[in-house]
Amino acid sequence: MDTKSSKLAIDVMGSDLGIREIMLGISLVFRNQAEAPNVILVGDEAKISDLLQECNLLGNPKISIHHASQVITMDDKPTLTIKQKKDSSMMRALDLVKAGEAQAILSCGNTGSLMAGGTIKLRMLPSIERPALSTVIPSKDHCFVLIDVGANPDSLPIHLVHNAIMGSHLCRVQLGIENPRVGLLTIGTEEGKGTEKTKQAHEHLKQISGLINYVGLIEGFHLFERNVDVVVCDGFVGNILIKTIESLFRTFKQIFKEELMKNLWRKIGAFISIGAFRAIKEQFNPDKYGMAPLIGLQGLVIKSHGSANRDAIFNAILQIVRLMELDINEQIKADAQKANKIIGFIKEELPIVTTNE
Amino acid sequence: MDTKSSKLAIDVMGSDLGIREIMLGISLVFRNQAEAPNVILVGDEAKISDLLQECNLLGNPKISIHHASQVITMDDKPTLTIKQKKDSSMMRALDLVKAGEAQAILSCGNTGSLMAGGTIKLRMLPSIERPALSTVIPSKDHCFVLIDVGANPDSLPIHLVHNAIMGSHLCRVQLGIENPRVGLLTIGTEEGKGTEKTKQAHEHLKQISGLINYVGLIEGFHLFERNVDVVVCDGFVGNILIKTIESLFRTFKQIFKEELMKNLWRKIGAFISIGAFRAIKEQFNPDKYGMAPLIGLQGLVIKSHGSANRDAIFNAILQIVRLMELDINEQIKADAQKANKIIGFIKEELPIVTTNE
Repeated sequence: MDTKSSKLAIDVMGSDLGIREIMLGISLVFRNQAEAPNVILVGDEAKISDLLQECNLLGNPKISIHHASQVITMDDKPTLTIKQKKDSSMMRALDLVKAGEAQAILSCGNTGSLMAGGTIKLRMLPSIERPALSTVIPSKDHCFVLIDVGANPDSLPIHLVHNAIMGSHLCRVQLGIENPRVGLLTIGTEEGKGTEKTKQAHEHLKQISGLINYVGLIEGFHLFERNVDVVVCDGFVGNILIKTIESLFRTFKQIFKEELMKNLWRKIGAFISIGAFRAIKEQFNPDKYGMAPLIGLQGLVIKSHGSANRDAIFNAILQIVRLMELDINEQIKADAQKANKIIGFIKEELPIVTTNE
Repeated sequence: MDTKSSKLAIDVMGSDLGIREIMLGISLVFRNQAEAPNVILVGDEAKISDLLQECNLLGNPKISIHHASQVITMDDKPTLTIKQKKDSSMMRALDLVKAGEAQAILSCGNTGSLMAGGTIKLRMLPSIERPALSTVIPSKDHCFVLIDVGANPDSLPIHLVHNAIMGSHLCRVQLGIENPRVGLLTIGTEEGKGTEKTKQAHEHLKQISGLINYVGLIEGFHLFERNVDVVVCDGFVGNILIKTIESLFRTFKQIFKEELMKNLWRKIGAFISIGAFRAIKEQFNPDKYGMAPLIGLQGLVIKSHGSANRDAIFNAILQIVRLMELDINEQIKADAQKANKIIGFIKEELPIVTTNE
């Protein structure tokens, strides 16, 4: 992909922290990066202009504005937003990718709407049947890619194979690991354990070991223990996992806070060793990666957290630039094509859904 | 169930910590409880006798010994152990339950063997189609029951309904919650989200809301946040979840240890606030419940952790006594029967597997 001419459409409206925080994240990119990407800011034109002025970015040749009158909220029903909020910043940004005016979209808005809108508007890569939502999870001294975390809950074995390929490429770009070890998440590492779905996917993954570095079945035990760089699962399991992990983090944080504030001695002790707590917090800082690619579509669709702050937006944009530079979709397309051939999978073409536009 | 005459068969051999630790756990029950249950200790007779002598329990009228010459190890293949290790302590203990000589079994051995052996030897309760493995998970200021954590990975919607009933009764006995709130674990709380399986199970659970306190769909976010007392899922999701949670605990522990020991100041701080760390450790102490019932069978099959120490064994035995006293299987049988009638489910009788005995 020619990144000189490629453009990133940013939905600046859907964030929980408001448009200002997003604009400050964008401004960080332009202030700190020699080669900032071309961006199209999609949303309320007046507000965007004001904030560009505030950030000293008004008139920057790499920045353009695309007005959108509506905003999709977190309470909007995903499937309805495509028809009822056509002029929303998110749908307009997706339209720009669909029309080829942008090659990627970044949004902090309603995940369901982005998945539904992205899938329906952009269509799948030719060799991929379903998209997957991927995320980077931090652990002790390392990170791993978890894919899928919610795009395709009722998935088939072939979708898990595609997830392995897509996750492998994302890991290479996002974590810089040249030959990432890929594991299939199941409930026992002996052959024959698991569900029919994982057993079949396991056989397929062994067949395509020339394309990815498949290390085999893994269990929940191995997740945080540096055994693999890419954890493959279906969208049902992955979504429950990621939310459980988040819930557990939050619970731990509350418990530590309460216990360490219970009396003066503990407070003093905590104060003295505060460096340790800061280091741990930094290690699990969700803003470091701050984005979840919805991968497998014709165009890069990147979701950032609803409460992503300026740092998360800054980091997300830099990663999207790398994804565009390395043309990840072309690589995925090629590898998935080879895998389909080896496995003997012929993709069933889904009917094209028209959205009356 | 008449607990005066009911007996608990204990497989004393399969533990990672050795027979001695199990015997010390049993001894704790006899030393601390006015009403200790009748137990049959299954395993190496000579070793058991020696240890009973050491514990001053030899000749206690409530304790009998049943010799078994073999031991199932963690490396044994579950399906093979039933035929190849007929004279193992675990299989012999299951045989005692099968013959009605004991009403419950406690084992720290190979989980797969216990599930396979228990299911094949004891058969299901008349109204239940598949067994479920249940566990209690601690959170901040409360605990919840997670069911199923691995017995039935390829489950059907009706199995999730049965899990809800079984989990509800276990929660009542284990956590003492009179009317436990039951949630079905899925990936979004809006109607229509999830897999076909969870959607159908959700409809069924609403139908039987007179039998259990069904509060609806829950997400991973809610797991540790006191929204429900019983979390229902299939054995695939539950097994991955519980192992992930364990892995995350271990990782946190390592990170805290490393960070707090990094320099003298941090060590001093940690030492001063050590009470907080101890309180947190106690809150998540896995020995407090220390057992996982394999529920739904004709007989109580209780798995304890491979590395369960004497305290865990002590706590497990006390809970088993309560499960026997309250005759949990009779209650489950009755409620599942009612649920099947409401839903219109007719149980398909599985062929009886003979084990050549």
